Amino acid sequence: MRKVCVIGVGQTRFGRLPYTTRDLALMAAREAVEDAGIDVREIQGCFVSNAFSWTERQGHLGPLIMSGLGIATAPATVVESACASGSSAIREAYVNIMAGMYDVMLVVGVERVQHLDTIRATTYFTYGGDYLFEGGVGASFPGLYAAIARAHMAKYGTTEEQMALVAVKNHDNGLLNPKAHIHKKITVEDVLKSPVVAHPLKLYDCCPFSDGAAAAVLCSEEYARRMGAERRIYIRGSGRAGGPLALHDREDLTSLIGTRLAAEEAFRRAGLDRKSIDFAEVHDAFTIAEIVALEDLGFYEKGEAARAVENGETRLGGRFPVNPSGGLKSKGHPVGATGVGQLVEIFDQLTERAGPRQVHGARVALAHNVGATGGSVVVTIYSRDPPA
Amino acid sequence: MRKVCVIGVGQTRFGRLPYTTRDLALMAAREAVEDAGIDVREIQGCFVSNAFSWTERQGHLGPLIMSGLGIATAPATVVESACASGSSAIREAYVNIMAGMYDVMLVVGVERVQHLDTIRATTYFTYGGDYLFEGGVGASFPGLYAAIARAHMAKYGTTEEQMALVAVKNHDNGLLNPKAHIHKKITVEDVLKSPVVAHPLKLYDCCPFSDGAAAAVLCSEEYARRMGAERRIYIRGSGRAGGPLALHDREDLTSLIGTRLAAEEAFRRAGLDRKSIDFAEVHDAFTIAEIVALEDLGFYEKGEAARAVENGETRLGGRFPVNPSGGLKSKGHPVGATGVGQLVEIFDQLTERAGPRQVHGARVALAHNVGATGGSVVVTIYSRDPPA
Repeated sequence: MRKVCVIGVGQTRFGRLPYTTRDLALMAAREAVEDAGIDVREIQGCFVSNAFSWTERQGHLGPLIMSGLGIATAPATVVESACASGSSAIREAYVNIMAGMYDVMLVVGVERVQHLDTIRATTYFTYGGDYLFEGGVGASFPGLYAAIARAHMAKYGTTEEQMALVAVKNHDNGLLNPKAHIHKKITVEDVLKSPVVAHPLKLYDCCPFSDGAAAAVLCSEEYARRMGAERRIYIRGSGRAGGPLALHDREDLTSLIGTRLAAEEAFRRAGLDRKSIDFAEVHDAFTIAEIVALEDLGFYEKGEAARAVENGETRLGGRFPVNPSGGLKSKGHPVGATGVGQLVEIFDQLTERAGPRQVHGARVALAHNVGATGGSVVVTIYSRDPPA
Repeated sequence: MRKVCVIGVGQTRFGRLPYTTRDLALMAAREAVEDAGIDVREIQGCFVSNAFSWTERQGHLGPLIMSGLGIATAPATVVESACASGSSAIREAYVNIMAGMYDVMLVVGVERVQHLDTIRATTYFTYGGDYLFEGGVGASFPGLYAAIARAHMAKYGTTEEQMALVAVKNHDNGLLNPKAHIHKKITVEDVLKSPVVAHPLKLYDCCPFSDGAAAAVLCSEEYARRMGAERRIYIRGSGRAGGPLALHDREDLTSLIGTRLAAEEAFRRAGLDRKSIDFAEVHDAFTIAEIVALEDLGFYEKGEAARAVENGETRLGGRFPVNPSGGLKSKGHPVGATGVGQLVEIFDQLTERAGPRQVHGARVALAHNVGATGGSVVVTIYSRDPPA
């Protein structure tokens, strides 16, 4: 199988943006192509990740974006796995290049939801869960993650303060990211005093609804060499797994089996162990989700991650920085764009251009992207150095 | 690269069905797994094709379907390319198996639209085109295909009678297909006298809105041999290309560049020529579309396909049967399921179980699936015999 590289990335700011899905996608895509230093006509195919473009009456985003880029005949397929759409698109581009179907592909993640009021956005998000048994009877994602938080608190003694510290850390990191949705320093007290959304989760335990787009150019190693790509990183391993879509089908609420299986696959394919990972971008849609993820990914024993957050290990400058970008919590969560945005951060970090939030000397990083409450999980490992 | 087989298929009837998207998908999936003669736990991953599940408040169909099948941890990704979603899902499963990511995968195409009234369905379908410039200003698909028909009539002298003959033929074939949406013998006169939808297209020139699901089990040749799969066919070549999403961006309305390029890629990868194809399932969303497809696929010179329809070549028992299943026109067009449904027909034909509509002695067949007016096109070539 061929080795696969990333040679350029692009990203709009995440937030409330005055653009349509089409505009956002094209802005990020053009930036990625320019960053890769190639002519757009080199792009042979594309995967687009999106979940909600139907809310602005547009589907079939593949040819819409290709037409906008002036390369209408390039095939482009839309991928949807709720909040894990972006990393799913990256995975399929990776497989296609590995298999030799294409040498150079574009991945574009895009979402626009800020044209919807909060009630509508919250409702539409529930379509990512099992609507018949969850959303349709009032269980929206804050409620479902609150159940996970409660279970984790009961089983492992995790506290609201520890969850609040995840938010504080990610807001601190987001302050250093000019493309983050939320630029606001907060304290543990701010989090604890913020309005309750679904107890024990307060407003600052929850990521925002964001508009935004992110894009990346993936290619075979041979193509990267031939083009003399200035910057390149490698996809070392990818893992993808599912889990019961509805919470009521699970034996244990404190762990996502999809994360455990996807991590296992990604590390196996990469031939690397947990210790080789210098930093991680994980799916902190809610603060509890970051704690659960760090355990399920195998970086900490079950029940140990909250203490690591508490002792500062996961801060920038700590032993193992987590979400240097600010994460979903502060950088924002434009659903279809989120997983691709994680790659944008990892690319910038591994090519030493992350500025004030640079993780110094980072050579290997992991991205973890979750759909809904764990129905789909993708784990991807990237490195600065080529595989042996 | 590894050779890829199809070892089992399943399909609901297409039509107005009293089931949800979830139900339909599970019915077809279970049938395909049973047809393959394997335990469902053998399935390692899945691609789902769907465009409109949000109309019944459900997204993230991958884990929904896997959970329903009792294999929740199997990864499943949704693919959307408007009406070409089904064949796009088949293509990605094919690439994943070829690349060695999985040995056995399920593909499930599903759509439910009959819970919508006709105005809503027509409107939502326009989201597959360029909504800003087409659907949003009143150009729905019958109107857009009417423009294509007009251009073809002007350039090549194609007549309304010739288009009507496509409908007559496909209705005749559909009468032999117990799973077809429409079972109704019609005459050229019936077509010409049916209500005008968008001149020159009348009601019987247009495919119906259908509910339905189709599924297939794909695997590596090695797996098929190991399992002693009773029935198996091979994917010989796959091609995928795009085209300008909006009609106004095209130099010529009488031809879809996506079909031409996708066919070229599929034949090149298969190492086969047009003469080796025994029959074809093509995307006859409108009667004119079948004529344009037969030309763009390279089976007839431009302007020649209508005459071939007229002289009966494309009928069952003719020199080159087209849409023995009844096609979208009579078998029906449940958007996300359509491309997978084409594979179901081809599998049944190449394994000699198509009953009264059997194309006798067929060994190689082609499927052609189009998204919107040509924004996405997938061409797939299947054979009974393994590649050399």
